[in-house]
Amino acid sequence: MSLMIVGSMAFDALETPFGKVDRIIGGSATYAAWAASNFTKPIKQVSIIGGDFPEDEIKKLEARGVQFEGVEVVKDGKSFFWSGRYHMDMNTRDTLATELNVLEQFNPQIPDSYQDTEFLFLGNLTPDVQMQVINQMKNRPKLIVLDTMNFWMEIALDGLKAVLKKIDVLMVNDSEARELSGEYSLVKAALKIQEMGPKYVIIKKGEHGALLFHGTHVFFAPALPLEEVFDPTGAGDTFAGGFMGHIARTKDISFQNMKTAIIIGSAMASFCVEKFGPNRLQEIERKDIEARIDEFIELVNFDIDIV
Amino acid sequence: MSLMIVGSMAFDALETPFGKVDRIIGGSATYAAWAASNFTKPIKQVSIIGGDFPEDEIKKLEARGVQFEGVEVVKDGKSFFWSGRYHMDMNTRDTLATELNVLEQFNPQIPDSYQDTEFLFLGNLTPDVQMQVINQMKNRPKLIVLDTMNFWMEIALDGLKAVLKKIDVLMVNDSEARELSGEYSLVKAALKIQEMGPKYVIIKKGEHGALLFHGTHVFFAPALPLEEVFDPTGAGDTFAGGFMGHIARTKDISFQNMKTAIIIGSAMASFCVEKFGPNRLQEIERKDIEARIDEFIELVNFDIDIV
Repeated sequence: MSLMIVGSMAFDALETPFGKVDRIIGGSATYAAWAASNFTKPIKQVSIIGGDFPEDEIKKLEARGVQFEGVEVVKDGKSFFWSGRYHMDMNTRDTLATELNVLEQFNPQIPDSYQDTEFLFLGNLTPDVQMQVINQMKNRPKLIVLDTMNFWMEIALDGLKAVLKKIDVLMVNDSEARELSGEYSLVKAALKIQEMGPKYVIIKKGEHGALLFHGTHVFFAPALPLEEVFDPTGAGDTFAGGFMGHIARTKDISFQNMKTAIIIGSAMASFCVEKFGPNRLQEIERKDIEARIDEFIELVNFDIDIV
Repeated sequence: MSLMIVGSMAFDALETPFGKVDRIIGGSATYAAWAASNFTKPIKQVSIIGGDFPEDEIKKLEARGVQFEGVEVVKDGKSFFWSGRYHMDMNTRDTLATELNVLEQFNPQIPDSYQDTEFLFLGNLTPDVQMQVINQMKNRPKLIVLDTMNFWMEIALDGLKAVLKKIDVLMVNDSEARELSGEYSLVKAALKIQEMGPKYVIIKKGEHGALLFHGTHVFFAPALPLEEVFDPTGAGDTFAGGFMGHIARTKDISFQNMKTAIIIGSAMASFCVEKFGPNRLQEIERKDIEARIDEFIELVNFDIDIV
């Protein structure tokens, strides 16, 4: 009975209009685990790291209930490294360097102790690796949520389409939803994507919030208007982690509960962008999360009576 | 005890990815009056038109409770004309032609019968004309709401700053808020604009919804995700009309009630974009509006419990 998170654990070098860091902890599975660990444990982590990945970062995650049996350590290898520079609008960025390193040989082996997974998050990885994980699950998880990106739509569309047939929830951003569906309207895009497999489509719009589609039902969660977005790296993975953490805690996969999960994901993402890397996620406590969720309620709450 | 709307009444020629019209009724005061007339009457209209403005369009508005004593008719003049072409994203457009015509000589004279105005909407016009209207009001309205655009920030900033000191609510879009304040963050932009005069700032983000700022309080209203935005012309003025109509009906200028007014404005705007010009606004009935508002409630409504 638990949550499994599959994704990268990595180093990032980042430049934003507000500052620069040369080497900071990153990776989709890192952000997702930090966010989810506020709501549920254990978290069964699946990733691959080099001998250079800091022992104390692993310890900090273990202290939060994250299990590492599914994380392969390549002692003489180097962890995945990504370097990017954000533009002023924080929605666009240039990739300066991508060094796959150990990620190139990622061939996840799901331990027996992970086989009771009820809720599975497949972070952005090559669709073949995502499929490999699904195929190793002896019991299909209750909910499989997948993140992907335009890169795979361009170089591995067939593999992506195959894995889409196996999942329940797809998380993409607005431009990816448009690219995958060939539809400009996000409403039409979500309908087309549902025909490809996932019965739920979450479209992330960064500072403009997120939409959840299921059939013709739509739910919208705003992003919290912030004075400053300091570093957007990992915001999408943090959103996913908050979403999965809430679902795993409540064990309720209804549309109604996914709405709540999206608000919680949005709240977690709003912390993530306040500092470089996962720094802010490592600091916050339950009371910070509760206060932030109250801000979300305040942000969208209205009374109506038009008679 | 009434609502006064000041703005253009005009002809538009429009091209969108979905079609083309050569000559259709438009103008900020036209859209605002159509939207507001669902909620309140009388509406005291202030504008200037040429002899070419169709008599039956005036009759249709009069039947909705719109008064024309403050609308100057220049019998041998031509009404304001604007022509534009929208790009695929519907957020950007090229102006193909602007013919000011009678608008060039607009020198609004507020009739005595309009002096009991409680709620004043100043549509996008030169700041000097907006100021001229405010100066003619013997009793200051309870609430003055002003719309403007980047054009006036560029050629009439001093006049705009003077009129901002006299108003309560500024409505602008996100790029205009950034231009006026010199701040990229909309939170910071709204705080700076409040220092310029208006205690409330509404930032319209088109398909991404609208934000209401008052001090450090923020409210967010989404735009309804639509399968197709057919023609965005007039959506902002329709939003303003719905907002003003609700405020005038309820006579409640609290932050709480402005939140409701923004939802109603957003609902009206979502109708506006479904057909060319104000066509859709002329068709809809109370039951359509109620159903649409229910969709908004559904869109943002969530339960939360993270314990």
